[in-house]
Amino acid sequence: MRAPERSIELTQVTEWDDGRVRAVQDSLAAEEPMEIRIGGIPLTVTMRTPGNDLELAAGFLLTEGIIESGEQIAGLRIKAPENGMKSNVVEVELKDTDFECGDLQRNFYAASSCGICGKASINAIRVRGLRQPDRGFRVDAEVLCRMPEALRAEQAVFSQTGGLHAAALFDASGQLIALREDIGRHNAVDKIAGWAVLEKKFPLAQHVLLVSGRGGFEIVQKALAAGIPILASVSAPSSLAVKLARELGLTLIGFLRGRRFVIYSSGFRCLP
Amino acid sequence: MRAPERSIELTQVTEWDDGRVRAVQDSLAAEEPMEIRIGGIPLTVTMRTPGNDLELAAGFLLTEGIIESGEQIAGLRIKAPENGMKSNVVEVELKDTDFECGDLQRNFYAASSCGICGKASINAIRVRGLRQPDRGFRVDAEVLCRMPEALRAEQAVFSQTGGLHAAALFDASGQLIALREDIGRHNAVDKIAGWAVLEKKFPLAQHVLLVSGRGGFEIVQKALAAGIPILASVSAPSSLAVKLARELGLTLIGFLRGRRFVIYSSGFRCLP
Repeated sequence: MRAPERSIELTQVTEWDDGRVRAVQDSLAAEEPMEIRIGGIPLTVTMRTPGNDLELAAGFLLTEGIIESGEQIAGLRIKAPENGMKSNVVEVELKDTDFECGDLQRNFYAASSCGICGKASINAIRVRGLRQPDRGFRVDAEVLCRMPEALRAEQAVFSQTGGLHAAALFDASGQLIALREDIGRHNAVDKIAGWAVLEKKFPLAQHVLLVSGRGGFEIVQKALAAGIPILASVSAPSSLAVKLARELGLTLIGFLRGRRFVIYSSGFRCLP
Repeated sequence: MRAPERSIELTQVTEWDDGRVRAVQDSLAAEEPMEIRIGGIPLTVTMRTPGNDLELAAGFLLTEGIIESGEQIAGLRIKAPENGMKSNVVEVELKDTDFECGDLQRNFYAASSCGICGKASINAIRVRGLRQPDRGFRVDAEVLCRMPEALRAEQAVFSQTGGLHAAALFDASGQLIALREDIGRHNAVDKIAGWAVLEKKFPLAQHVLLVSGRGGFEIVQKALAAGIPILASVSAPSSLAVKLARELGLTLIGFLRGRRFVIYSSGFRCLP
């Protein structure tokens, strides 16, 4: 898979190797701020890896509970370049004309990886409108075990920079449907959700989402918002992630490595 | 090192191991929201691993540019428990009575790992008041190479849960001075910065900060706010992290593994 344009930057660095010092060229994962505006009003800024920006914006709106389907998006575009510089602003128009930017901002919750947010009270960390995912979807355990290798084989940017998180969507047969990478774990998931919205494949009720990092609370929340029934990670989930997954019946899998994994909730979707 | 109280939760899970299914007990890294209030007004909520909450609050205020030193903190306490439940609220009183919570919220920048923030414009992603770190501090490359092993040996919670990030502070001789763990990379750094504030060791002008995850833009920003001259990571930095480190003269080191590392900026502090 080719890395998207602008997702990698080359730079000169110094390598220290067992006492030998030399100048080498290094590939860096690009990180740039992206602003989302709704009806011309700035909603949020995220630090992201450029590429799939429209997906990221659409996915963010969906997984934060700002929209419930792609039908609500009337317009979605990258702002025209100014002074020859590529734009880092995505402009969204929603069909709902009652939109109040201030209302939305108050709904945001904090992210475990940052500690920064606009939310003002613990009482509202959960995105509204989360629903139980499809209970009819099943995946064979043997199929699950093959997914991490399929993800790694497709990780284009990571292989060059060593610095990106990935989220990958699989169907019940283990076929990789979509893969997105980003310097932010949440953004990779939002790009997948946004892809589903723009490709009219939402909700993702017949899919497994595999993430390269931890399965934290917000990742579980975003998976649920996208309608995903099985969320798998090669690493550990947090206590709150497990709690939310159990409450809403998401199948949460951790430590998916080799021929072993741990099921934290709703194992019925992958056990005989 | 013992894990702080409440940082680990035990739960029953199901293990699938090469076709064999069994119930086992698992240790989860705890994740709970923590709210910071200034003068009674909610400022922010962060998802964090409980433990060292006062350090986290003090460090957050410092690395977000809300305070410039511990002198500005008049009071710092965990809110009294209600209905027998431990409180997840830290109450701060600042000496500056001109404090406007709304002003502060507008200064927050987005975090690469979340995509969620209260910031409304790309033009203000940088925390104000960042200064060049001490140019006189030096560390031998051989000393740097020993730091990752020292960090791993002390990671109490990680060894039990596999799910936590760590930030560790070292002096020029390679002595580990402080280590903090958290489900959020940024929180681990904030806990270190807050420890320095509360122990009256700020600014950390004669120290190396080693982080277990990536060296992203916000981690560089937080290190600079804490006065740290050398930031090292076992993984890759982002393009914007390198740009900011170069602009302000922070020594930024990546891929610190075994007897090799990569210097992205200001190598003079660790090269002969």
